[in-house]
Amino acid sequence: MILAKVVGTVVCSSRNDSMNGARYLLVEKSNQHGERKGDYLVALDVLGAGHDELVMVTEGSPSRETPLTTNKPVDALIVGIVDKIDENEQVTYMK
Amino acid sequence: MILAKVVGTVVCSSRNDSMNGARYLLVEKSNQHGERKGDYLVALDVLGAGHDELVMVTEGSPSRETPLTTNKPVDALIVGIVDKIDENEQVTYMK
Amino acid sequence: MILAKVVGTVVCSSRNDSMNGARYLLVEKSNQHGERKGDYLVALDVLGAGHDELVMVTEGSPSRETPLTTNKPVDALIVGIVDKIDENEQVTYMK
Amino acid sequence: MILAKVVGTVVCSSRNDSMNGARYLLVEKSNQHGERKGDYLVALDVLGAGHDELVMVTEGSPSRETPLTTNKPVDALIVGIVDKIDENEQVTYMK
Amino acid sequence: MILAKVVGTVVCSSRNDSMNGARYLLVEKSNQHGERKGDYLVALDVLGAGHDELVMVTEGSPSRETPLTTNKPVDALIVGIVDKIDENEQVTYMK
Repeated sequence: MILAKVVGTVVCSSRNDSMNGARYLLVEKSNQHGERKGDYLVALDVLGAGHDELVMVTEGSPSRETPLTTNKPVDALIVGIVDKIDENEQVTYMK
Repeated sequence: MILAKVVGTVVCSSRNDSMNGARYLLVEKSNQHGERKGDYLVALDVLGAGHDELVMVTEGSPSRETPLTTNKPVDALIVGIVDKIDENEQVTYMK
Repeated sequence: MILAKVVGTVVCSSRNDSMNGARYLLVEKSNQHGERKGDYLVALDVLGAGHDELVMVTEGSPSRETPLTTNKPVDALIVGIVDKIDENEQVTYMK
Repeated sequence: MILAKVVGTVVCSSRNDSMNGARYLLVEKSNQHGERKGDYLVALDVLGAGHDELVMVTEGSPSRETPLTTNKPVDALIVGIVDKIDENEQVTYMK
Repeated sequence: MILAKVVGTVVCSSRNDSMNGARYLLVEKSNQHGERKGDYLVALDVLGAGHDELVMVTEGSPSRETPLTTNKPVDALIVGIVDKIDENEQVTYMK
C-alpha cells in the first residue's frame, strides 16, 4: 500500500462502473512524515476521508476486494485513514 | 485511476479479443489541470469519449470489470469522462 | 495497452507453461509514430505478427483472457496488429 | 518479490478491510546486501517480522493468496523473513 | 515477460506460502544480449534454472498459473530458460 494525502475531488458525468455514490478523490503520494511528493492519482473513497488527511491506498486488482467495489473497474482504493506512523521507534506522523 | 486526455485513435486489423466494435483510443496522461504530460497509452473506450476530453482511466486487471470487457485481454479502460476537478478547494479543471 | 514493434524472437527449451507452439517475441516499446523507444519486453504472440510490425500489447493479468492463454503464466500478450494511428486528426502511423 | 527492511509501523483507525489484528509495517526497499534504498511502502505482516529484519514482499494481487488475506484489499504482503542471500556464490546477507 | 540472469539464492526461514521445496532465486534483469542491467528481483524457480543462466520471468498475478504456484502469494516466476534470442535477424544471445 502507499501513503497519500487527500487533496481534492474528481467529478465524472458518465461512468460505466455502476457505483452510484462512489466518490473519487484526488490524492497526492506522501512520505512517512505526511509530506507530499508531487505525484497524483485518483482513488475511490468509501471511508469518508477528509481533506488533507493522510490515507493508505491499495492499488490494482485488490481494490475490488470490498463489498462496495466487488467486480468494479477500480484500480485504487482508500483502505485506511492513518492515525500514526513511526520509523525507527520515532513518531514521524500523528493525525 | 489516472487522468488522461483523448488525443487520437488506434485501428487494428487482427484482434484476438473478440470485441467487435471495441474502440481503442490513444490517450495522453494529464495532470489535474488537464495539461498533457507527454506519456501515452492505448485505452479501450465504451463511453464514447470525444477528442480532447479529459477522462479517468483504470489500468490492469480491473479493466475487465464491465459487462463489455468481462474476460477480455484489456489492461486500460476509460471509466469516466471528467466534468470537474478541484484541489485544495480551488477548481483546477472544468469541462 | 502499449504500442511496440516486433524486433525478434526468444526461444526457450524448458517451459512450465504447457503452451506447445507458443511463440515468444522480443518487442520494443514504440510511440504513436511507430518509432522505437529502446525499452524491450517479451510478449506472447498468437496472431502471427511479423517482423517490424507495430503491435498493441496487453500487460499483466488480462493477458490470460484468450482461449489459448487461459490459466497460463503469461504477463504480456500481443492483442492486435496496428493498421493506423491518428493523433489530433493527423495520421501518425500507417501500416 | 522484492527485498525490504522493516523500519516502522502504520496505524489506521478506520479500515474497510475487515482484518482485525492486521499489522501494517512501513518497509524500505533494500538490496541483496540488506542496504536500504530510500524507497518505502506499507506491507501487511502476518509473520511477526521484527524491526530491522530483512523480508521478502509480494506485491499486487498475489498478496491475497494466504488464508488471512483471502478477498482482502491488500497489495503488499510480507511472505518471508530472509535468513541468507548469496550472489555469485558469495554470501551477501546473513541474518 | 522480462529477461533476467540467475545470480544467487534467497533463503527464508519463516514462510507463509505453504510451498515446501520452493526455491527463491535472486535474478538480475538483463537485455537481449544477456547483459545484466543492475536491477534485481526475487523469482520463484520450479524449472531448476542454474547459476548465470538467462531466464524469462513472468511478473504479477499470472505467476500463480502453474500447478505448483496455484493460489500462492508469488509475484515473479521463472517460466523458461532461454536458449536463443535474435533481434533483426541477428542472434544476440545463444546459451
